[in-house]
Amino acid sequence: MPLQEGVITRPKGFRAAAVHCGLKTVAGRPDLAILICDVPAAAAGLFTTNKICSPAVVVSRERVHRGTLRGLVVNAGNANACTGEQGLADARRMTELAANALSCKDLDFAVASTGVIGHPLPMKKVESGISAAAAKVSSDVSSATDFAKAICTTDRWSKESLRTISVGGVTVTIAGAAKGAGMISPNMATLLAFVTTDASIEPVLLQELAAGAVNQSFNKTTVDGDMSTNDSIFFLASGLAGAPTMRRNSSEANAFAAALAEVCLDLARSMARDGEGATKLVTVRVTGAASDDDAEIAARRICHSSLVTTAMFGCDPNWGRIIAAAGSTGIRMEESRTILRIGGELIFDRGVPLAPSKALIEHMKSDAVDVALELGLGKGSAVMFTCDLGHDYVTLNAEYHT
Amino acid sequence: MPLQEGVITRPKGFRAAAVHCGLKTVAGRPDLAILICDVPAAAAGLFTTNKICSPAVVVSRERVHRGTLRGLVVNAGNANACTGEQGLADARRMTELAANALSCKDLDFAVASTGVIGHPLPMKKVESGISAAAAKVSSDVSSATDFAKAICTTDRWSKESLRTISVGGVTVTIAGAAKGAGMISPNMATLLAFVTTDASIEPVLLQELAAGAVNQSFNKTTVDGDMSTNDSIFFLASGLAGAPTMRRNSSEANAFAAALAEVCLDLARSMARDGEGATKLVTVRVTGAASDDDAEIAARRICHSSLVTTAMFGCDPNWGRIIAAAGSTGIRMEESRTILRIGGELIFDRGVPLAPSKALIEHMKSDAVDVALELGLGKGSAVMFTCDLGHDYVTLNAEYHT
Repeated sequence: MPLQEGVITRPKGFRAAAVHCGLKTVAGRPDLAILICDVPAAAAGLFTTNKICSPAVVVSRERVHRGTLRGLVVNAGNANACTGEQGLADARRMTELAANALSCKDLDFAVASTGVIGHPLPMKKVESGISAAAAKVSSDVSSATDFAKAICTTDRWSKESLRTISVGGVTVTIAGAAKGAGMISPNMATLLAFVTTDASIEPVLLQELAAGAVNQSFNKTTVDGDMSTNDSIFFLASGLAGAPTMRRNSSEANAFAAALAEVCLDLARSMARDGEGATKLVTVRVTGAASDDDAEIAARRICHSSLVTTAMFGCDPNWGRIIAAAGSTGIRMEESRTILRIGGELIFDRGVPLAPSKALIEHMKSDAVDVALELGLGKGSAVMFTCDLGHDYVTLNAEYHT
Repeated sequence: MPLQEGVITRPKGFRAAAVHCGLKTVAGRPDLAILICDVPAAAAGLFTTNKICSPAVVVSRERVHRGTLRGLVVNAGNANACTGEQGLADARRMTELAANALSCKDLDFAVASTGVIGHPLPMKKVESGISAAAAKVSSDVSSATDFAKAICTTDRWSKESLRTISVGGVTVTIAGAAKGAGMISPNMATLLAFVTTDASIEPVLLQELAAGAVNQSFNKTTVDGDMSTNDSIFFLASGLAGAPTMRRNSSEANAFAAALAEVCLDLARSMARDGEGATKLVTVRVTGAASDDDAEIAARRICHSSLVTTAMFGCDPNWGRIIAAAGSTGIRMEESRTILRIGGELIFDRGVPLAPSKALIEHMKSDAVDVALELGLGKGSAVMFTCDLGHDYVTLNAEYHT
């Protein structure tokens, strides 16, 4: 269920292409992609905080830090992680190959990889893939849809999102594409996501607004609490819409920040909904906590509880597990003040459990379940997104062999 | 696969009995049990730190704090949690009924409950159960085996353990019985466990040694990271072996502490092995960490990783997920110093992945997998126990309805 299709090139100045070069075993499925901007784009990025990270992350972090990028080369099917010095050389070589083919400098390119860990990249395949993708993107055969598909691994659908805002009377476009599925956890940059815009913005401000958007979206999303070695999110701004450059704290910058957060939230929610084996999106809102931190701790714990997420899979409004998960965190909480609603229906009212209403039983069968926990203690609140834990998660992850 | 059977009454002075009173739906399966000591026993206990806890925990914490107990009444099939004031009255009433039937005072009894959350105890059934169990235990028909079975819920086998040591030339016996299965996580007193001994020891010292034993065993065991509302572990010492009273830091007290820890470790490992839907026990050892804390953080994170535990279910030596889980914690860790062994076989050597050996592939299929992560940074070490995550966990927890 993609929300949008082929949007990553809608902002002015961007082209994209993808090819199959043999990294994924399914013949014809795109596995190598290039995204390029006609001009140097202001660049921002957020990356995994895992101590074990892919050379692609090491290289891209450096390149993004320089402030501008011309393009990105991305592969799926091999994460180029735990591959040592060779992996680092291969990541650099990928940017060099893409840059050469597109008359750019190495340093103008960043790289992202996703897939299996611990296998050296098959560079022959990667080289032919980059060459083919570069030829495609140069010949104006831009395929943003293929780009979004190429970055996927076990995703069941590609994730895209689009927003427009007006800056100084000029329409500015923001687009995103992401891949998710497994190994998704908050407090990191998430798996692979790419956001393009034709807004004009300085790199430093773009990085600030990007961090804010990621914090409200990807960092509030968890599938299994596992943080990948490769999580990367890139933001590129071409400035080609012709709108004035946004200034910090201006109303335009604020509107842009809000739209950026919406694009990221679309992508993050779609990722949660597409968690490996998931049958539903679960939104957990905690309110009335003693602090926002407390609320987030409780929301995250509920999302991470296998007992809660398996109950969701079973369409069981198991309020006991939800309340016990929150209580186990050590935050301030009192049974006699705690109210739990699922799908807007009251199920636990200040110490007293209620029989589930018909509406609640129906809601549990839907593909989007809303859990609202009110602690009755203060003004702290938080929202987190996750998915249910079903048999297909076990099957996928028991059988996705090294 | 019980390690021992019917041992909880081996230490002198203890009797036990269990009956079916209708709390479990399977006819005839024992669901209410009494453990009694012929004399006031020195008592110690550790309880869940969940803010949402059962009235049984509230009552037992008070009673244990008094220093001595005569007995315990335990039920399975209903946790008496999230049951408000009525639940507290019911928990007290359970101790009163058991005490009256056995000519003790209310305050001499503690209570433990396990099962479904949020339903008031069916006190008619509980009353007849206590009456029947008390009659049984009074008539010298002691059944320690039934006691161990009665406390189980989704456990596939009862968990028991036995040790003897010599104190001043006299043999002292330590025995334990526990139930586990789901909702097991470190940093709490675990689910229900009962340890009896005929050693002579002051309650304050017993509490100290009990805390140490629990910290080395139950607190190092995790099935799904969920902490129950009812976790309780009780220690009762009758003193009837006739051995001298142990003094703090004496060689006898140290030997007793070691045996106590062994009993708890037997029970904890049996619980991990019997995690809901588990097919194997997974032992995770982290060594060479910058500190013991770092090692424990990494070991716990590996045990909690659904990606790791589903790979274990699939018999896949997925070292990438193990290393990524450790790396995601933020502890000090360097890929180029990290060594991973599974079943003693090297699979990742300071940045270089190795092909799994035949011995390793066989080891993955066994019912006890050993993961050893060496960080090469310092002297910090930790051991944690968990189990794999398979389809039966999902089935059990999606279908165990509220």
